Amino acid sequence: MHISPGTKVSLPRDITAGSAIWEHGVENLPIILVVEDDHLVSSVVEESLVDGGFQTTIASSGENAIELLDASDGKYRALVTDINLGRGGIDGWDVAKHAREIDPSFPIVYMSGKDADDWASKGVPNSIMLAKPFAPAQIVTAVSQLLNASPPTAPTE
Amino acid sequence: MHISPGTKVSLPRDITAGSAIWEHGVENLPIILVVEDDHLVSSVVEESLVDGGFQTTIASSGENAIELLDASDGKYRALVTDINLGRGGIDGWDVAKHAREIDPSFPIVYMSGKDADDWASKGVPNSIMLAKPFAPAQIVTAVSQLLNASPPTAPTE
Amino acid sequence: MHISPGTKVSLPRDITAGSAIWEHGVENLPIILVVEDDHLVSSVVEESLVDGGFQTTIASSGENAIELLDASDGKYRALVTDINLGRGGIDGWDVAKHAREIDPSFPIVYMSGKDADDWASKGVPNSIMLAKPFAPAQIVTAVSQLLNASPPTAPTE
Amino acid sequence: MHISPGTKVSLPRDITAGSAIWEHGVENLPIILVVEDDHLVSSVVEESLVDGGFQTTIASSGENAIELLDASDGKYRALVTDINLGRGGIDGWDVAKHAREIDPSFPIVYMSGKDADDWASKGVPNSIMLAKPFAPAQIVTAVSQLLNASPPTAPTE
Amino acid sequence: MHISPGTKVSLPRDITAGSAIWEHGVENLPIILVVEDDHLVSSVVEESLVDGGFQTTIASSGENAIELLDASDGKYRALVTDINLGRGGIDGWDVAKHAREIDPSFPIVYMSGKDADDWASKGVPNSIMLAKPFAPAQIVTAVSQLLNASPPTAPTE
Amino acid sequence: MHISPGTKVSLPRDITAGSAIWEHGVENLPIILVVEDDHLVSSVVEESLVDGGFQTTIASSGENAIELLDASDGKYRALVTDINLGRGGIDGWDVAKHAREIDPSFPIVYMSGKDADDWASKGVPNSIMLAKPFAPAQIVTAVSQLLNASPPTAPTE
Repeated sequence: MHISPGTKVSLPRDITAGSAIWEHGVENLPIILVVEDDHLVSSVVEESLVDGGFQTTIASSGENAIELLDASDGKYRALVTDINLGRGGIDGWDVAKHAREIDPSFPIVYMSGKDADDWASKGVPNSIMLAKPFAPAQIVTAVSQLLNASPPTAPTE
Repeated sequence: MHISPGTKVSLPRDITAGSAIWEHGVENLPIILVVEDDHLVSSVVEESLVDGGFQTTIASSGENAIELLDASDGKYRALVTDINLGRGGIDGWDVAKHAREIDPSFPIVYMSGKDADDWASKGVPNSIMLAKPFAPAQIVTAVSQLLNASPPTAPTE
Repeated sequence: MHISPGTKVSLPRDITAGSAIWEHGVENLPIILVVEDDHLVSSVVEESLVDGGFQTTIASSGENAIELLDASDGKYRALVTDINLGRGGIDGWDVAKHAREIDPSFPIVYMSGKDADDWASKGVPNSIMLAKPFAPAQIVTAVSQLLNASPPTAPTE
Repeated sequence: MHISPGTKVSLPRDITAGSAIWEHGVENLPIILVVEDDHLVSSVVEESLVDGGFQTTIASSGENAIELLDASDGKYRALVTDINLGRGGIDGWDVAKHAREIDPSFPIVYMSGKDADDWASKGVPNSIMLAKPFAPAQIVTAVSQLLNASPPTAPTE
Repeated sequence: MHISPGTKVSLPRDITAGSAIWEHGVENLPIILVVEDDHLVSSVVEESLVDGGFQTTIASSGENAIELLDASDGKYRALVTDINLGRGGIDGWDVAKHAREIDPSFPIVYMSGKDADDWASKGVPNSIMLAKPFAPAQIVTAVSQLLNASPPTAPTE
Repeated sequence: MHISPGTKVSLPRDITAGSAIWEHGVENLPIILVVEDDHLVSSVVEESLVDGGFQTTIASSGENAIELLDASDGKYRALVTDINLGRGGIDGWDVAKHAREIDPSFPIVYMSGKDADDWASKGVPNSIMLAKPFAPAQIVTAVSQLLNASPPTAPTE
């Protein structure tokens, strides 16, 4: 994995046990790519997902997210992205489209406050929009619903 | 919010942080209206939802629930209601219909033991019936599923 | 309940409270039958479900699971089964088919690593396949989704 | 079948062939109960369904529909009902509830113009509301969708 | 309705009867906007929809479709659009996004041969992609499915 | 295509026009493999599908169906199969499993009278069971629903 500036990797607390259980090593636990430029929000999202047993990688800009996806080689199992990603020209809609160009069945969860209404015209098919404010349980359920509905494929190496 | 007798308001434990994160103030976190006249059950439901990151308002009768919905001005994001609400003439089926008259896409979760079979004839479309006994995870998943499937709308003021 | 060798019964931690709340006694809380011959994996699955408020019964072989289902008299609310169950001739596909012969709407969750691709040809309708590695939240959501979608029926005695 | 005043029975045009093919006799072809007090509309609905290969029985009032359902002994496979049924006190919402009390999984299609908005509060779960004006293909698709999604049961005698 | 060059309006064959039945006048029958620059394909699509009881308006370019949508005032009930619309810069993906900006719940059906794989990244949520070649029944079912799933709204004037 | 004894190929009536329209030649129109040993039933099914614009290939035994699937190289777009296929040891459940081993997302529609109840334990995921007697519209809708829900893929050669 290419770790560019703005990337943060989080492991679930019971990572040693998990690694032993799945016998695939740490890098094969389900990793969710979270794209969020607000540290306060990303830490809440991260904590929710880690509590649910997911690993997370945090990208703090759209550019960073695109880089990680391009270098991921199937590493990530789902994308959770804010819409408005600040300074750069790449927003959450763009990141999601890029992820779906790489993998047409990639699970996508958008988070947004004021842009939630644009989901019907700018979102991708079979994605979920979480309108802020949402409860942590909603994000864990959203990611799980999409992963559970995905056609099963062999775990990526 | 009009707080009538029989109403109890619960905030999630990390309410200060939440308020800061969403930048909408406390009253805009997702609030679930729970209607249950049995205090033991309502405290289990409340604890489950608060653990999932929701706020709850408890109404202990159908009459109280109707009052809260009428005065809510979009404050609640979902309704979780018992069917048999004791003394009064207003049961959970009535409360749900009233909520849907105000907002046709309002998420509804019914809880019931002996009345679960009536859901097919007395429930509203796109609602979920939880037959008692159910696990706390089922109620959190039910509320999250319905919220995640709702068409995104701007948070209500 | 017939407890054969290889069966382990787990109660949620708040079982006394739960029993009081539902007023149905312990044996009527939602019990999930988990079939897994790897103790490390079954303990992770069990812990996830118990954290979600479910009770679990663990069967360590396909034969044991069939026995429990035959003697269950509607005791179990869902089946969570590994595919490859080791020595015996009975695998998770067989256990699921048997459960569905007894109850055509029985919720089924499969867990698998290398056999996940066979779900489309060997799985039963309206089931969920969790490809290992999965997060604990995924299994709790999967069981809850299936239970919440089931047509409500009177609790079994 | 009890044929009360206001009931009209229609057979598909190829009824002799159909009867031979299914080897169940005429009364076992899929029969749709259509409740509509406007003859012009009921003839359009009837023609659409018969073109799709269904048989229809037309009830011209809510009272007549209730009678037919009570005497049907499982004869009908789905209900297509107008909301506003004129003079009587029994409207389409009532007829649908009655049908669901008899069979909790009975397929229901409502047709309405001005009352379509009430579906969210007055309709039953897993039903379809067709807002007038609709195309004949919509009603045939609606009935087929609901029948195809129903849990398969042995044909009624 | 503004009829620009490249627009063709088709009425179902029984338009006089239909008009009488629905008592809303011709312009309120369900009209589907079909966007297709190949006359042979558009005539097949049109014939299929008219056989199903829909009216159609044909736009032969993306520009023409945008104009019709902007002037439609809710006249159209669904969009059926080819992806590759020839000379102009506006393709079917653009037309669909525009329709969804006007009405977030607008039913969208895409038709495509070589571009079908792009649906996962370029399509809008809750749309249907028909990969050419498809049977006429698929397009009628697709439009009916989306219309039947739409939240009922009062017919537009 | 290997045509073994017991195979019958049907083209839609407007095959010349269709061929011209799709510009893919006849063999690329959507072909449905129908497996049915009763000629009367298979002719009804065939006529329904051809009326809906599909082509059909009829196999009169499970063995014949397996042969056609093995030699098909992606030629068929869906399978419609009876359960009880007479003399041979191969029934409709087997044919469907075989089709899904070749293509995990292959659309499957079962037709059955007395065996419909076995669908929950013997059917494959995401399939549709049509309990006889069914209307022709149901089979066309079932095939169309499954094809319209499939992830779009490039037309097979």
